[in-house]
Amino acid sequence: MNQLIEVDDRLAPVQGVLADALARVEARFDAQLGSDLPAVRELCAHVERYRGKMLRPTLVVLCALAADPRAARRPETTHVTESHVTVAAVCEMVHMATLVHDDVLDEAENRRRGRTVNHLYGNEAAVILGDYLIASAFELCTQLDSVSSARLIGGVSMTTCAGELLQLRFRDDYSIDEQTYFEIVERKTAALIAASCELGALHSDSNPETARLLAEFGRGLGVAFQVQDDLLDLTGEEAIVGKSLGRDLAKGKLTLPMIHHLALADPTQRGRSLRLAEAAAGNDNDAHNAARSLRQALDATASISHARDTARRLADQARARLSRLHDSPAREFLNRLAVAAVDRAY
Amino acid sequence: MNQLIEVDDRLAPVQGVLADALARVEARFDAQLGSDLPAVRELCAHVERYRGKMLRPTLVVLCALAADPRAARRPETTHVTESHVTVAAVCEMVHMATLVHDDVLDEAENRRRGRTVNHLYGNEAAVILGDYLIASAFELCTQLDSVSSARLIGGVSMTTCAGELLQLRFRDDYSIDEQTYFEIVERKTAALIAASCELGALHSDSNPETARLLAEFGRGLGVAFQVQDDLLDLTGEEAIVGKSLGRDLAKGKLTLPMIHHLALADPTQRGRSLRLAEAAAGNDNDAHNAARSLRQALDATASISHARDTARRLADQARARLSRLHDSPAREFLNRLAVAAVDRAY
Repeated sequence: MNQLIEVDDRLAPVQGVLADALARVEARFDAQLGSDLPAVRELCAHVERYRGKMLRPTLVVLCALAADPRAARRPETTHVTESHVTVAAVCEMVHMATLVHDDVLDEAENRRRGRTVNHLYGNEAAVILGDYLIASAFELCTQLDSVSSARLIGGVSMTTCAGELLQLRFRDDYSIDEQTYFEIVERKTAALIAASCELGALHSDSNPETARLLAEFGRGLGVAFQVQDDLLDLTGEEAIVGKSLGRDLAKGKLTLPMIHHLALADPTQRGRSLRLAEAAAGNDNDAHNAARSLRQALDATASISHARDTARRLADQARARLSRLHDSPAREFLNRLAVAAVDRAY
Repeated sequence: MNQLIEVDDRLAPVQGVLADALARVEARFDAQLGSDLPAVRELCAHVERYRGKMLRPTLVVLCALAADPRAARRPETTHVTESHVTVAAVCEMVHMATLVHDDVLDEAENRRRGRTVNHLYGNEAAVILGDYLIASAFELCTQLDSVSSARLIGGVSMTTCAGELLQLRFRDDYSIDEQTYFEIVERKTAALIAASCELGALHSDSNPETARLLAEFGRGLGVAFQVQDDLLDLTGEEAIVGKSLGRDLAKGKLTLPMIHHLALADPTQRGRSLRLAEAAAGNDNDAHNAARSLRQALDATASISHARDTARRLADQARARLSRLHDSPAREFLNRLAVAAVDRAY
């Protein structure tokens, strides 16, 4: 994520601490996935190519800094502990596991400008590899001194799965409302992002109130981030986003713009839009035209801008939580990250 | 498993303690899977029907008793602790997760005389439900006082997945040898069974040597159990075993009888047997005839009896470990369980 941010003099020291910390997270990640079996090593090496924005490790580190009173003015002197590195690697590993399984469920062929595991090695390898990543994340968790972090990660992983099951339940259900959409997003995406922020703070010498504030910041950021992701799936350019797009419609998943549009459209338009959505799910030229017509229909009810405004409002609400922390370069970094999360084109 | 054993006067008290403990394990299992979401509850309720032999919880409880010097003579007075119950529920939950995902990979339609999750709810629900079960197991693990049990479970779950990935790598590879077969089985099946035995002992007041012995007993029992499972897939009666059979051949998985047969058969017979294996993978009448011809070919090289003898020898070796524990009804129960594991028809 940090490549989305313009780093000025004030943020430069944080950027340096962050880069060092993320390099340690990558090393911890790779070490944990080592295996004596070539079959396992090969697949894990492929997963390492999935690592893109490193949003969750970035949040662990920035929240660790923002929560630590000593780091308020001089982040470059701050000690990012082994616990922070472990927790960051765990959060990224849980996230990778969901990506690998999501790609199986979505029948996606591309991710981060590369081929998905399911596309290259088959669904079976992808299912087992996802399981291996989850198990590795939990095993790594137990290297921490206390069980409370492992409990938080275990609980959040349950919540993430529950969100995915809820989403599946509403697949092809064109009556899904905004409230249900947000219930899904809070569970399947925001819970782990909130936990990343909370764990960063908890492993610093911060007070519980700070950890709670940063968890709430993460929750809001997570929802905003997912709304933007869903927008990009509908309106983004595949070459820029770097993964298969249009998968939501193709798999009968209605996201915020469509839900808003269907609620506002008259019955005739509603029927027409649903037919367009179905046609847009294909891979041919007709699909391309249908997708364009659908975007025009969404614009006519201002549904794209509704989703964009919602994402920005949620990001603003998340940023408001930060104002209750002491001022610091790390806090400012988090602030700009929340802006970038909803302004990004990939 | 205990229904496979003839319980005489000596074992009756253990049987009573075991039945009480397993009821508590079931309650812990169900409580952990509770959710506010009907979509999650419905799927979890279906998984509870999968519970069959409860082999892993049974081993946790019996090893807890066998390892505890106080339980040597009067098992009915033994306290099966909350930790034992938790550990047993965790082991069963990890096992359930692998069953749910295995059924997706194997495209199986039936398990324990019911429909599989993937058959009823689709592959997507089954993949996510498996993830939910793994996450629930780890979350439950963190309710234990120490992290060492959680670490053992995390590590064993990694090993189980690594075994599955190794198995996948050798799918459709007709040159697989017995050594590789046992490497797969030790990881994908025996590691969790060994951990069940070890954790039962570790949560009793036993010495480390006893826990190590029981882990070794579990490892041997686990391999023997899987060899017998693979035999039943090849030679069992679907109505008796209660799940889809012949899946190994259908999915290109060679197990001990076939590996032994192909190594001994002359080139002509080898080619014929491979064609029969392919034909037996279907669902029609020809497949039935091919399966019968294949069994005759396997008999001609004594490959069925080789596998059966191997299972018995492994079970005997496992039982020999028990002789180094003090004599007790629980130890005798474990002894008979190891005999039953390789004599069973389901």
